[in-house]
Amino acid sequence: MSERKRRAGPGAAAGGSTSKKPRGASAAASYAQSLRSKLRPDDSILASLRALASASAQSKPATASSAGAKALAEDDPASDSSSYIVVADQDINSVTSRINRLVLSVARSILAGRGFSFSVPSRTSTNQVYLPDLDRIVLLRREAARPFANVTTARKATVTARVLSLVHAVLRRGIHVTKRDLFYTDVKLFEDQAHSDAVLDDVSCMLGCTRSSLHVVASEKGVVVGRLIFHDDGDRIDCTRMGVGGKAIPPNIDRVSGIESDALFILLVEKDAAFMRLAEDRFYNRFPCIILTAKGQPDVATRLFLRRLKVELKLPVLAMVDSDPYGLKILSVYMCGSKNMSYDSANLTTPDIKWLGVRPSDLDKYRVPEQCRLPMTDHDIKVGKEMLAEDFVKQNASWVKELETMLQTKQKAEIQALSSFGFQYLTEVYLPLKLQQEDWI
Amino acid sequence: MSERKRRAGPGAAAGGSTSKKPRGASAAASYAQSLRSKLRPDDSILASLRALASASAQSKPATASSAGAKALAEDDPASDSSSYIVVADQDINSVTSRINRLVLSVARSILAGRGFSFSVPSRTSTNQVYLPDLDRIVLLRREAARPFANVTTARKATVTARVLSLVHAVLRRGIHVTKRDLFYTDVKLFEDQAHSDAVLDDVSCMLGCTRSSLHVVASEKGVVVGRLIFHDDGDRIDCTRMGVGGKAIPPNIDRVSGIESDALFILLVEKDAAFMRLAEDRFYNRFPCIILTAKGQPDVATRLFLRRLKVELKLPVLAMVDSDPYGLKILSVYMCGSKNMSYDSANLTTPDIKWLGVRPSDLDKYRVPEQCRLPMTDHDIKVGKEMLAEDFVKQNASWVKELETMLQTKQKAEIQALSSFGFQYLTEVYLPLKLQQEDWI
Repeated sequence: MSERKRRAGPGAAAGGSTSKKPRGASAAASYAQSLRSKLRPDDSILASLRALASASAQSKPATASSAGAKALAEDDPASDSSSYIVVADQDINSVTSRINRLVLSVARSILAGRGFSFSVPSRTSTNQVYLPDLDRIVLLRREAARPFANVTTARKATVTARVLSLVHAVLRRGIHVTKRDLFYTDVKLFEDQAHSDAVLDDVSCMLGCTRSSLHVVASEKGVVVGRLIFHDDGDRIDCTRMGVGGKAIPPNIDRVSGIESDALFILLVEKDAAFMRLAEDRFYNRFPCIILTAKGQPDVATRLFLRRLKVELKLPVLAMVDSDPYGLKILSVYMCGSKNMSYDSANLTTPDIKWLGVRPSDLDKYRVPEQCRLPMTDHDIKVGKEMLAEDFVKQNASWVKELETMLQTKQKAEIQALSSFGFQYLTEVYLPLKLQQEDWI
Repeated sequence: MSERKRRAGPGAAAGGSTSKKPRGASAAASYAQSLRSKLRPDDSILASLRALASASAQSKPATASSAGAKALAEDDPASDSSSYIVVADQDINSVTSRINRLVLSVARSILAGRGFSFSVPSRTSTNQVYLPDLDRIVLLRREAARPFANVTTARKATVTARVLSLVHAVLRRGIHVTKRDLFYTDVKLFEDQAHSDAVLDDVSCMLGCTRSSLHVVASEKGVVVGRLIFHDDGDRIDCTRMGVGGKAIPPNIDRVSGIESDALFILLVEKDAAFMRLAEDRFYNRFPCIILTAKGQPDVATRLFLRRLKVELKLPVLAMVDSDPYGLKILSVYMCGSKNMSYDSANLTTPDIKWLGVRPSDLDKYRVPEQCRLPMTDHDIKVGKEMLAEDFVKQNASWVKELETMLQTKQKAEIQALSSFGFQYLTEVYLPLKLQQEDWI
């Protein structure tokens, strides 16, 4: 066996320098080599990827898996719904005039003797529901009055007025601020950042604008690399020339423009270790793609960016996450949104993400060694069972099957577990083979 | 007062749209305006910054504050020390031949009948000391044998051999891997990542190489923007054209080359909210600088990058951290290193960072409103007292004074607290004024 490994030359998996030990590691290397021989030439794999990409480009809205309503277009969603709240990206002028109209209506109400009051959408959890037709969590349309002349709401009405005025000031200057900045402009009134944050979400719903339209942004965490060109605040960014570090995903999505790409798919990666491997090996040059990661739990900026790419480029999105309930949970946040931001789910979610790997069935299929798998904890199993009850999982029979496999074997594994077959196994064998076999669900 | 504010026009601090309320916020805005009027023209501030930059460029090693040993040069530090261990960046060939020499000496030991054994530097905490002359934490030179023919060390000797062989394989391929990747290549042997991580540090000490020379990298967290051009894995990165998002700092510092800059200083920022403000306002165009942040606790990649910039560009480093014990702790990690990585402190630390703000004395000096200050918790006070006992703080009388002020007033404040004077107060008033007054310690 050590003979075979030597012959494999520099292309063989790492660990080759310890040819004396006929242990797990070298068996793994020879198995990796046998898989490698199954790989067809790249041209043949690329042909099938091209077919996938063009199918994805035409799937608007007809072929999009389930309902037509799942469509991912840039049309104004505010019009097509009366039962639930949909906010949309708006430009500075539009948001400013919405604020002006709102304040004017409040003024009219005062003049008419009806007093100073806001009408605010209710964002309680009972009001946040998953709509199977839309395949995302939405906020039902149900409003409550917030009068100033009422002991229980006087403070909240004041905070609402103050936040409206601050957002107005931010927009007038054309800058972006964080939630924390907003809080600190009037600590005396807001008292706690949770208060100003909550009212900011209220204001977003009241105006029918996304939070990023209000120019209040989240901090950035994500990075992107690959076959993508875009403008960040006017600067042209070529993501094939971003080295190994990649380009930090901008916090303010409205400053992103001029998106161009010759990629065939978007590869969404859970963790930065896998991202680094892909970036260093310039995987996107072999299989034209855009690679992005939020380094764990997806932040708002990365979710907005992914959706923007999907909407504009109409590329299929393939996901590489750990084979554990959290990997699936991360997918669910990208696809269906989080409950807290349900009013903005249309802008934050990217439906139709394909689960490429590492899937529970991959562990046996790709012979991930026993010692690289981890036993699921009680908490893991609890989360897994909760996921099984989620509507978005139930919609996809093959996802249910995978999750059941996971809960049955009680085993989990990280993407990094693939390193047991060699450091570059991920980019040289596993992913190419997955793409060749169109092995996503 | 509202009259004065209106006259101030669009340059006035935010919050101006609520002119009816004579509350804290508008008083703050008018105070900000009075400070703004103290600002000299930028040319005059730039002249003093130029003087600072050229002083910094010549301070090698003579004027570097305390001891000459604090010098920050790219000389080989391995030669000038016998009492403590210093590792250095080495290229692939050098590390490979060091591994070969090491393995050869082990083989000779076996042939000579002395058995299979490694000589490994002790990295226990009693061996990690702060050297005032060097102004950083170092690892004393004290070695222990790690023989294979001994029950207590047999396993560790095997792990050491395995890690050496894996590093050798990584170097031969010219790639970079994470600690997690390394662990997963032989889970059966390593059992726990803590074991392979610890031995990796041992190997780093044994070979006298930095961990990044071994091509085992940490994950990246930091971002950079401003007057800086460098090459990341051969791609030319112009950090003035990285939009608001900035460029992610590459995890593998040895792929960074061709550093060029016309900046006058490096602005080190604790948090990404402040970074975003500086990036969006393109602060570096008004005052030529390089702005970087690790988004909280500094990671190894950001520390390596900062040091690299300081070594090559010889620019002064000014730091903006929260006014709390953790802000100071973060500075200490950049300046003196963490105890765990003491053997590599020479490559990871950047001495002579100036504490620009937010300093405890700034709270009164810049009239940060009471409600934007937070009371220190018992834990904060404990950490503050510990910092006061740290050698690196004691060396600088003005730092001690600031820390004493903090502990006396029992108040802390975030950088974001400056937003109470307007969203752009940081970039338009506070920082320019600090630079004008050369108010750093």
